[in-house]
Amino acid sequence: MSVFKMTEIVGTSKEGLEQAIQEALGRASKTVRDMHWFEVKEIRGTVKDGQVGEFQVRMAVGFKLDD
Amino acid sequence: MSVFKMTEIVGTSKEGLEQAIQEALGRASKTVRDMHWFEVKEIRGTVKDGQVGEFQVRMAVGFKLDD
Amino acid sequence: MSVFKMTEIVGTSKEGLEQAIQEALGRASKTVRDMHWFEVKEIRGTVKDGQVGEFQVRMAVGFKLDD
Amino acid sequence: MSVFKMTEIVGTSKEGLEQAIQEALGRASKTVRDMHWFEVKEIRGTVKDGQVGEFQVRMAVGFKLDD
Amino acid sequence: MSVFKMTEIVGTSKEGLEQAIQEALGRASKTVRDMHWFEVKEIRGTVKDGQVGEFQVRMAVGFKLDD
Amino acid sequence: MSVFKMTEIVGTSKEGLEQAIQEALGRASKTVRDMHWFEVKEIRGTVKDGQVGEFQVRMAVGFKLDD
Amino acid sequence: MSVFKMTEIVGTSKEGLEQAIQEALGRASKTVRDMHWFEVKEIRGTVKDGQVGEFQVRMAVGFKLDD
Amino acid sequence: MSVFKMTEIVGTSKEGLEQAIQEALGRASKTVRDMHWFEVKEIRGTVKDGQVGEFQVRMAVGFKLDD
Amino acid sequence: MSVFKMTEIVGTSKEGLEQAIQEALGRASKTVRDMHWFEVKEIRGTVKDGQVGEFQVRMAVGFKLDD
Amino acid sequence: MSVFKMTEIVGTSKEGLEQAIQEALGRASKTVRDMHWFEVKEIRGTVKDGQVGEFQVRMAVGFKLDD
Amino acid sequence: MSVFKMTEIVGTSKEGLEQAIQEALGRASKTVRDMHWFEVKEIRGTVKDGQVGEFQVRMAVGFKLDD
Amino acid sequence: MSVFKMTEIVGTSKEGLEQAIQEALGRASKTVRDMHWFEVKEIRGTVKDGQVGEFQVRMAVGFKLDD
Repeated sequence: MSVFKMTEIVGTSKEGLEQAIQEALGRASKTVRDMHWFEVKEIRGTVKDGQVGEFQVRMAVGFKLDD
Repeated sequence: MSVFKMTEIVGTSKEGLEQAIQEALGRASKTVRDMHWFEVKEIRGTVKDGQVGEFQVRMAVGFKLDD
Repeated sequence: MSVFKMTEIVGTSKEGLEQAIQEALGRASKTVRDMHWFEVKEIRGTVKDGQVGEFQVRMAVGFKLDD
Repeated sequence: MSVFKMTEIVGTSKEGLEQAIQEALGRASKTVRDMHWFEVKEIRGTVKDGQVGEFQVRMAVGFKLDD
Repeated sequence: MSVFKMTEIVGTSKEGLEQAIQEALGRASKTVRDMHWFEVKEIRGTVKDGQVGEFQVRMAVGFKLDD
Repeated sequence: MSVFKMTEIVGTSKEGLEQAIQEALGRASKTVRDMHWFEVKEIRGTVKDGQVGEFQVRMAVGFKLDD
Repeated sequence: MSVFKMTEIVGTSKEGLEQAIQEALGRASKTVRDMHWFEVKEIRGTVKDGQVGEFQVRMAVGFKLDD
Repeated sequence: MSVFKMTEIVGTSKEGLEQAIQEALGRASKTVRDMHWFEVKEIRGTVKDGQVGEFQVRMAVGFKLDD
Repeated sequence: MSVFKMTEIVGTSKEGLEQAIQEALGRASKTVRDMHWFEVKEIRGTVKDGQVGEFQVRMAVGFKLDD
Repeated sequence: MSVFKMTEIVGTSKEGLEQAIQEALGRASKTVRDMHWFEVKEIRGTVKDGQVGEFQVRMAVGFKLDD
Repeated sequence: MSVFKMTEIVGTSKEGLEQAIQEALGRASKTVRDMHWFEVKEIRGTVKDGQVGEFQVRMAVGFKLDD
Repeated sequence: MSVFKMTEIVGTSKEGLEQAIQEALGRASKTVRDMHWFEVKEIRGTVKDGQVGEFQVRMAVGFKLDD
C-alpha cells in the first residue's frame, strides 16, 4: 500500500492568498515529486503603512513516497 | 424563537477560494431554503504538476427551520 | 525590549477575503499606529439569495507599544 | 449493532440557556425520532441596548437510525 | 463596509450563568457603544464551603467601529 | 466543479474499531450514494464488568452531491 | 508554595446547568477538602420524549494539597 | 442525581489498539467499581527495529460515585 | 543532551488501523534510523461500494538525531 | 459583582521566558491598573546565528474594571 | 503489559517556571510512587504591583500502576 | 517572494526550558541554514526520584528556502 509524507511550508505573496499557495507549491515542486494534496494550516501576514505588506499561508503538503 | 440547522458542505474550484465558497452555496441553495450564514472549517486542495489542481473549501452553513 | 499588543477586529467585504482583510487594517490604522502583523482567526460570511452576501474575516493584529 | 446520526442545530431564547436548548430539541423532535443525547458546541447571543437580546446555543444531537 | 472590534470580558455572578453574562454586558455598555453579539469562551467559578462561590463567564463581545 | 456534503454518524461494535467503522458505513450506504471518504472524529465506548461493552466510533462521511 | 490537584467530575440535573454544577460540587465535597475553583469542560445531556432528560456538566475542580 | 468521576489511564499492548484499551480497563477495574464509559484521548506507541514496539492508548474512564 | 526530529507520514492499509501504522513505519525505516516513538494524528479512509476502501493513519514519528 | 477585562500582549526578552513575561507586565502596568492574573498563550522567538535571538511570550492579562 | 495513570497537578513558585514544575513533582512524590513523565498543560500566574506574583504551571503526571 | 519550510524538533536539557530550546536550535543549525523563527509546541519531561529528569521542548522551526 502507498505511504505518504507530509511537509510543512509557508508561501508568501503581495497579491493574495491563492498566489501565496501557488508560490509555496511552485518552490516545493523543485525538490519534491509526486505531491498529491495540501492543507492550509494558518493565514497571517505583515502590515505596512496600514495595508497588507504580504500574505503568508502556512500549508502541509502530502506527497507519495517511492515504494 | 427561531431554530437553525447547520449543514456541512465542501465546495471546489480551480479559480480560487471565493469561487469554491460560491460553488458550494449555489449547489446547496437548490435543496435548502433560507440560508443565513456560513463558516469556513477547512481549506485544502489537490496538487497537479506542481500547481493547485483545485481548491476545496469545507463550510458549515446555517439555515432557518420553518416554525 | 519591545512589547506588542494584540487587538481583534473583523473586516467585511462583498468582494473577497483579501478585501475584507484590507478593510479591517485600513479602519484600524485610523486609531492604531505601528501595526506589524495580522493573523486570520476565522472566515465566515452571510448568505443572500443563495450567494455570498459578504465575507467576514476575523483577525488578530499586533502593534508595537511605545516605550 | 446500533448506528447513530448526529445533526447540528442552534436553539434561541430570550430567557436563558436551558430554554434555548429545549427550544432546539422541541423543533428537532418534529422531524427526527429517537433522539438520545445532545452536546453543546457553542454558546453565543445578540446584544440589544447593552443587554442580552437572545441566547443562541449550538448543539449536536444524536439519534438512532432504524435498522 | 462595516468593521467590528472584539473585546474580551469576564462577568461574575452568585446567581447563575445568564446573570454573569448580563453583568458583563451591562458593565461593558458603559464605555462601548453599538455592541452586536457575544460569544462565551469559558465558564468557571470559585468554590466556597463545597458550593459555587461565584460563576465566572468569559466572553468575547463584538461591536461596530464608527466609519 | 463537484460539491460534497458531510454527514456525521456513530458506528458501534463489540468486535473492534474497524468493525464499528464498517458498521456505520454499511448503514449509511442504505440511504446515501456515492460516499468518497470518512474521517474518525472520536473513539469511545461503554464498559461492562470491567471490559469493553461496545466500541463507538464517530465519523464524518463525505459524499458527492448530484449536479 | 502551594500545590493544587485537579479532579474531573460530571454533575447531572433535571433542573438546569447551575444545579448540575452544584450537584457535582456537593458530592465532591464529601471526600475532597479545600476546593478552590472549577472549570466547565463540556455540557451535554440526554433527550427523552423530545425534551431534555437530564443536563450533564463535566468539570475540572482544583483543590489545595496539604503541605 | 448521579455524579460521575473521570480518571485518565494509559493502556499498552504489543497486539493492537483494542487490546491496549482492554488492558487498561482490566487494570482499572481492580480498584474502581461501576465504570460506565471510556473515551480515547491519544494513540501513540514505541518503535523498535522499524516496527511497532507497543501501542499506547490514553483514555478517560467515567465511573459512578456512590451516593 | 539528545535532540529528536519529528517527521509526519501517512500509512495506508486495506486490513486495519494497526496494519496502516506498521506500513508507515516499515517504509520510514528505509530512510530514517533510530525511530523512538510515533503519535497518531488523524484516522481517515476512502469508501468503496459502501465499505472501507482503505484505512489512512497519519502519524508523527520521532527519531534521534546523531550528535 | 466584579467584571474583568482581558487584554493580549507579547513580551520579548533575550534572557528567558520569565523575563519576557515580566517585560510585558511591566509595560502593561503603565496604562492598566489592577491587573489580577495572566495566561501564557504562545511561546515563540527569533533565531540568529543558530541561537535564540529573542524569546516572545504571548499572554492574556486580566484586570478589574472600575464599578 | 504496563498500565499508567495520569494525575493533574498545579505547581506554583515565585521564582520561575522550572521551580513551579519541581514544586509540583516534589509534592506529588509524597503520595505517588513510580512517576515516569509530565506534560505541561497550562502556564499562568498572578500579578502583584505590575509584576509576577507567582507562576502557576498545570501539569499532567504519568505514573505506573502496580501489576 | 520568499518560501519557508517548517521542521519539528525536540530539544532536551537537565537545566531548564531555555536550555532545551537552545540545545535543539544548536543541533538543527548543523544541517539547516537560515533559520528565522521557532514556535514551542509542547513542554514535557521525564521524572526521576520525584524530580525533573530532563525537560523536553518540542518546537517548530522555520527556515528560508533558497530561491
